[in-house]
Amino acid sequence: MTEKRPFDVLNNALNKNVLVKLKGDVEIRGLLASFDVHMNLVIEEGEELKAGELKRKLGTVLLRGDTVVFVSPAE
Amino acid sequence: MTEKRPFDVLNNALNKNVLVKLKGDVEIRGLLASFDVHMNLVIEEGEELKAGELKRKLGTVLLRGDTVVFVSPAE
Amino acid sequence: MTEKRPFDVLNNALNKNVLVKLKGDVEIRGLLASFDVHMNLVIEEGEELKAGELKRKLGTVLLRGDTVVFVSPAE
Amino acid sequence: MTEKRPFDVLNNALNKNVLVKLKGDVEIRGLLASFDVHMNLVIEEGEELKAGELKRKLGTVLLRGDTVVFVSPAE
Amino acid sequence: MTEKRPFDVLNNALNKNVLVKLKGDVEIRGLLASFDVHMNLVIEEGEELKAGELKRKLGTVLLRGDTVVFVSPAE
Amino acid sequence: MTEKRPFDVLNNALNKNVLVKLKGDVEIRGLLASFDVHMNLVIEEGEELKAGELKRKLGTVLLRGDTVVFVSPAE
Amino acid sequence: MTEKRPFDVLNNALNKNVLVKLKGDVEIRGLLASFDVHMNLVIEEGEELKAGELKRKLGTVLLRGDTVVFVSPAE
Repeated sequence: MTEKRPFDVLNNALNKNVLVKLKGDVEIRGLLASFDVHMNLVIEEGEELKAGELKRKLGTVLLRGDTVVFVSPAE
Repeated sequence: MTEKRPFDVLNNALNKNVLVKLKGDVEIRGLLASFDVHMNLVIEEGEELKAGELKRKLGTVLLRGDTVVFVSPAE
Repeated sequence: MTEKRPFDVLNNALNKNVLVKLKGDVEIRGLLASFDVHMNLVIEEGEELKAGELKRKLGTVLLRGDTVVFVSPAE
Repeated sequence: MTEKRPFDVLNNALNKNVLVKLKGDVEIRGLLASFDVHMNLVIEEGEELKAGELKRKLGTVLLRGDTVVFVSPAE
Repeated sequence: MTEKRPFDVLNNALNKNVLVKLKGDVEIRGLLASFDVHMNLVIEEGEELKAGELKRKLGTVLLRGDTVVFVSPAE
Repeated sequence: MTEKRPFDVLNNALNKNVLVKLKGDVEIRGLLASFDVHMNLVIEEGEELKAGELKRKLGTVLLRGDTVVFVSPAE
Repeated sequence: MTEKRPFDVLNNALNKNVLVKLKGDVEIRGLLASFDVHMNLVIEEGEELKAGELKRKLGTVLLRGDTVVFVSPAE
């Protein structure tokens, strides 16, 4: 088994589409532009989703790490 | 790929309009005047929004970092 | 751009009226008498508001920093 | 302006009546007997209030600091 | 004024009956058998209460400190 | 009084049946197989309970310490 | 008794199916690909469940450790 680390997922997802679920039932979809060790994330061309529907376009958005539930790169 | 960091978004947004989503379904819109490493933010000409509607004008407002969900600069 | 820091807002608001929003939909209005680095605040002539209405007069009140959502000086 | 610190409020309130609001809509009223830097508080002759009404008499009660919303000395 | 500290309440309550309120509206009543600096508590002959009514007998129970709201020794 | 510490309860409960209450009204029942200083717990032959009823059998389950409300060994 | 540690469960579950319960009633099922000391987890072929039903397929997903309630390897 090769050594893998959770943050590799973020590294590999840079400049690609991700879905981010935040606490409080908010989801953001867009391009992962940067992240840090606290899992603060910058999403570009970000869209806010509510119950799976587009709520509004946010453009660039900085997500605070401690509100992140999960990050899933688009396949 | 150039090295980018999440807080660059805040640096670039200084003196510009931002939308800040806080925990508990509160949103603040206004000019980003300052921030620190805890993501404490000062917004000037701040307006509090509830469900997307203007609830009241706050003027200057200090937002505590650990209540921030996301910060999105106006495009 | 001059160097500004979030806590300057508190410094400038000493002995002036502020509105403090706390987690759990409580708001306190009164004179900011002191604060520390944890954003613990002392408000004098404090009034507790619920849904924008005066709930009761508290006089002096110590607010624990980690329950603060925002602090907004009266204009 | 004299140098004041938030915990001075607790110091000055020792052996006096205080109202303590806790997270989750619980309030305790009684004599402040001791406190520490975590804002753990001991209240004597404590009464638990719910919606402003006496729920029960507790006598001595140790309140955990991180559940404190505010402490207000009786005037 | 003698020097008193909040944890003295726990020390004095060892082997005596206490009422412990936990976050999420759970209460435990029983004999305080031990505690540590995190306010982790061991209660013996513990009973879980819901809305003031006995929900079930637990016997020995270890309560995690960060869920504690208050501890009140029986008078 | 002999020196007792809260974690002794976990030590004494190894390989015995315990009931674990987690935040958010989830309970797990099963054999305590291991624990660490964060109160992370491994339960074997674990069953998830909801409102006192068996919801599903989980077998081995690692419980994250900071979601633990209490741990009670079966008598 | 052999020395066992909670994270051994994660180690033994690598590349196997796990069920992860997150705060806020979300569950993720899939292959555990990696983890770190914060219990950040990477799940591959991940599926999001709501009330036990498949809500959507996520593929690779990074779960933030502090939202984890429990991890249970499939038997």
